Amino acid sequence: MTAHLATMLVACPDRKGIVASLAQVLYGHGANILDADQHTDPVAGMFFQRIKFDLSSLTTDKVALEAGLREVSERFGMQSRLAYGNQVPRVAILCSKLEHCLYDLLIRYRAGELPCEIAMVVSNHAALEGVARHFEIPFHHLPVSADTRAEQEAAMVQLIDDAKIDLVVLARYMQVLTPSFVARYPSRIINIHHSFLPAFVGASPYRQAFEKGVKLIGATSHYVTEDLDQVPIIEQAVIRCSHRDSVEELVRKGRELETRVLAAAVRWHLQDRILVYAGKTVVFD
Amino acid sequence: MTAHLATMLVACPDRKGIVASLAQVLYGHGANILDADQHTDPVAGMFFQRIKFDLSSLTTDKVALEAGLREVSERFGMQSRLAYGNQVPRVAILCSKLEHCLYDLLIRYRAGELPCEIAMVVSNHAALEGVARHFEIPFHHLPVSADTRAEQEAAMVQLIDDAKIDLVVLARYMQVLTPSFVARYPSRIINIHHSFLPAFVGASPYRQAFEKGVKLIGATSHYVTEDLDQVPIIEQAVIRCSHRDSVEELVRKGRELETRVLAAAVRWHLQDRILVYAGKTVVFD
Amino acid sequence: MTAHLATMLVACPDRKGIVASLAQVLYGHGANILDADQHTDPVAGMFFQRIKFDLSSLTTDKVALEAGLREVSERFGMQSRLAYGNQVPRVAILCSKLEHCLYDLLIRYRAGELPCEIAMVVSNHAALEGVARHFEIPFHHLPVSADTRAEQEAAMVQLIDDAKIDLVVLARYMQVLTPSFVARYPSRIINIHHSFLPAFVGASPYRQAFEKGVKLIGATSHYVTEDLDQVPIIEQAVIRCSHRDSVEELVRKGRELETRVLAAAVRWHLQDRILVYAGKTVVFD
Amino acid sequence: MTAHLATMLVACPDRKGIVASLAQVLYGHGANILDADQHTDPVAGMFFQRIKFDLSSLTTDKVALEAGLREVSERFGMQSRLAYGNQVPRVAILCSKLEHCLYDLLIRYRAGELPCEIAMVVSNHAALEGVARHFEIPFHHLPVSADTRAEQEAAMVQLIDDAKIDLVVLARYMQVLTPSFVARYPSRIINIHHSFLPAFVGASPYRQAFEKGVKLIGATSHYVTEDLDQVPIIEQAVIRCSHRDSVEELVRKGRELETRVLAAAVRWHLQDRILVYAGKTVVFD
Repeated sequence: MTAHLATMLVACPDRKGIVASLAQVLYGHGANILDADQHTDPVAGMFFQRIKFDLSSLTTDKVALEAGLREVSERFGMQSRLAYGNQVPRVAILCSKLEHCLYDLLIRYRAGELPCEIAMVVSNHAALEGVARHFEIPFHHLPVSADTRAEQEAAMVQLIDDAKIDLVVLARYMQVLTPSFVARYPSRIINIHHSFLPAFVGASPYRQAFEKGVKLIGATSHYVTEDLDQVPIIEQAVIRCSHRDSVEELVRKGRELETRVLAAAVRWHLQDRILVYAGKTVVFD
Repeated sequence: MTAHLATMLVACPDRKGIVASLAQVLYGHGANILDADQHTDPVAGMFFQRIKFDLSSLTTDKVALEAGLREVSERFGMQSRLAYGNQVPRVAILCSKLEHCLYDLLIRYRAGELPCEIAMVVSNHAALEGVARHFEIPFHHLPVSADTRAEQEAAMVQLIDDAKIDLVVLARYMQVLTPSFVARYPSRIINIHHSFLPAFVGASPYRQAFEKGVKLIGATSHYVTEDLDQVPIIEQAVIRCSHRDSVEELVRKGRELETRVLAAAVRWHLQDRILVYAGKTVVFD
Repeated sequence: MTAHLATMLVACPDRKGIVASLAQVLYGHGANILDADQHTDPVAGMFFQRIKFDLSSLTTDKVALEAGLREVSERFGMQSRLAYGNQVPRVAILCSKLEHCLYDLLIRYRAGELPCEIAMVVSNHAALEGVARHFEIPFHHLPVSADTRAEQEAAMVQLIDDAKIDLVVLARYMQVLTPSFVARYPSRIINIHHSFLPAFVGASPYRQAFEKGVKLIGATSHYVTEDLDQVPIIEQAVIRCSHRDSVEELVRKGRELETRVLAAAVRWHLQDRILVYAGKTVVFD
Repeated sequence: MTAHLATMLVACPDRKGIVASLAQVLYGHGANILDADQHTDPVAGMFFQRIKFDLSSLTTDKVALEAGLREVSERFGMQSRLAYGNQVPRVAILCSKLEHCLYDLLIRYRAGELPCEIAMVVSNHAALEGVARHFEIPFHHLPVSADTRAEQEAAMVQLIDDAKIDLVVLARYMQVLTPSFVARYPSRIINIHHSFLPAFVGASPYRQAFEKGVKLIGATSHYVTEDLDQVPIIEQAVIRCSHRDSVEELVRKGRELETRVLAAAVRWHLQDRILVYAGKTVVFD
């Protein structure tokens, strides 16, 4: 996304005239709508929209445009978020010892697939320092034990806040985050769970899948909330398995899914495509 | 789709203000936009939109609304189509001896998945008359040979035009249609081809797939044009196969694909979700 | 499967020499192995095999061959099943008011996809009598209420046993079967559940999926046991969904999955491809 | 695969007694069959088998066992290959500037997914030297121009033969190999083509796919032969695309497919699961 583009995400009670009002304001200031996607939930009476527009021939300026959008926003009781293409989101990746998701994100990042600045890799183990260094990303080793969880999280918060991180990605980070950490970054922490939620919520989902004898295994990316049973799901995928697959084979097959499903969620978040609502997500893909 | 709804499909050269102008006209007449999806092709400089709106609290009337939309349409050089929910499209299904696609369409029709009136089944064989009768659809048997093609197509045209058919669906109809028949119904004939186009354009695609040793077989639904190499593709799907599959097994697996891929195309067409453009389709799904 | 073919399914503790012994017996009697697939579960120490062979140039006779196989079977402590191609399995389909799975099975049956004799359709409603009659299958209407469950099941048992039914298929049969009915036909009742088990075990799985905001919905075919949480799963498939899908859309998308997943399970069972073991299935596909 | 295991791949004209004879020899020497998969092509009258067996309680020795297998092999006119678990295949990866397939293979290699020794990375560019070095694999830079093709290939042959390479993997290697190079390593060079073959054989398949307006894009891994139209296909996969996808988006989506499809082919080859036959493959997966 280049500097002259902007994206607006909107959620509000459904009423007549929302689309016209927003489009009119943008047109009145000379902004050109490049892409617009909307969704109405008739049961909840809610309206959602994502508008991507071009500012390069703005006839006024950003201040005036924002004032106009704010006026519409207030009139309709909108929750909205406006992101400019020159504000590059800053990302922190948390990981432990498993390397596949970290590699995948960093390879995609270098290929230009993830419109962000990956500012740091943080881990409770030193194992992946070489991976971060290979991609020239600062690495922070913050070991943790049951006794030092509070201090370790405090150190992470310090790092994240000092670096003005917009999004935290858990790339198979094997520690449970405390409720206070989770509450600090609402809809700003993305995790990958190695099962097709809501199946196999607990520990060792591949072992559970093996024992149940399922014919497909899955992976789920989601925003982190306190309760894994209630997370807003962003993306899911599955892959075929059979009686021939040992737990180890399921783990191998699952790695492919995990990288894919996590990367999709991160990309969509960075492209301002996701709205969280009633414990679920609207993904304008 | 119920009577108080309408759908508008628009294609025009891309310019600023299109979205705002259409939204403003709809809002000005009291129509409520329920769903809007758009696409801009930056290479061709083209803009496409589908708007679904509710007319139940119109503050003017349809005549005034249409005049307003026509004015915008002319201003931007739009090709547009406006469909009201109470205008139920009329469909003719052409088939030969294979029954799976015909059954599938009629079962979905009776389940309410296809918003249309299936007005007739036409076949060059009598084999499927019992199927049509079971679903209480008029059946017309129009046998054809190399010598009688012109007369048979003339009879079909008569049936189709007399019944004011909007869409012709080829449900594994095993006759080649003449260019003049095809030209008579542009973007109004949907066919299912039993391969993943552009692979295996010619005869016996499952045999070709078998001989090539592919690991996936496919099916493609498309609008009929004179040249199968150049058809606008609407939908495609594939299914896994292996060295174990004989040609007969591929035929069996393919039936599942064919029904699914044809039904999706028919449903999208009937819901006014498809625009044809430069030999390709824009499908607002 | 034609008359000169036979299929043998074997399960036993793993030991050296099983494959050689069976192959030797078959070869010694002049049977020709057409296809053999095996599986060893190293954790449980179990061996499983499916052998399909041709009897047309048998040098002895079936009695001698069976004696030879019985001797091997006893030596290795096998549980085994031998099915001849001329013994066509007899099937009863149970349904209620939903027609999609019934239609799908009967269409595939007439197309030759299901190697069996569908001997009857049984329903607690009269709604689908016309479908059965269209395919010329005897239809039995056995209404049921909370008070008459015992009598209704007794009547079903009578019908099933009198007709020497080998397999009962629940094609969206909306009644819970009693434990005694289920226990009467172990691994001989196949059901389709409209979710990706073990997710959404309870009622209204599509509504549960909608409320959870999953991005894929699924269907699962399984042998019926007393506890839906513990069923041997035969086949599963999923289809993509999104925030745009209402519960009704999920139901529509699910129908496609349900038919496909149920038909695969029925076909595999009829081809003697499934072994049940430790609450799971081995499917030699 | 550990040292006490062995895999045998067999192809021969179909006759009675093949399975029994091989199983008998293995049993007679005390080898334990762990896994056996077979395929009969009734049209061509050919038989194919893969047997994996355990040598740890051999009652004779490898020399005696091999003599026994050779006797059977000659009797039935078999082409066969016997691989012991302690003979680790040696692999060379050829690449140019695109890094995704190289990274993917090396990550899987380090995770233990590829049972081989990756002995070298060879490239006509220096761009990926850092990747090879990061994974501690020797890197050879062999630049090439139209004038120096013969010398460059001669240098590659020297490297490959000196290192006793068993398999050459083209990980998006952007040079056409000469017929003599290809002929030197029959069924020992695996390539990834970025389309669903036989569609889009020529240059820029993603651009061709975009222009055709297909709704799925694919990738194909195959053994290299002189004619891309006639290659033995090993694995194929597809991913959904739409009118929204630019050529660049197709390239991005395709990377995921390419890595997956290439890695599967390499793993299956290394596990001795592939037989090439009549321009097609039998993959015992």
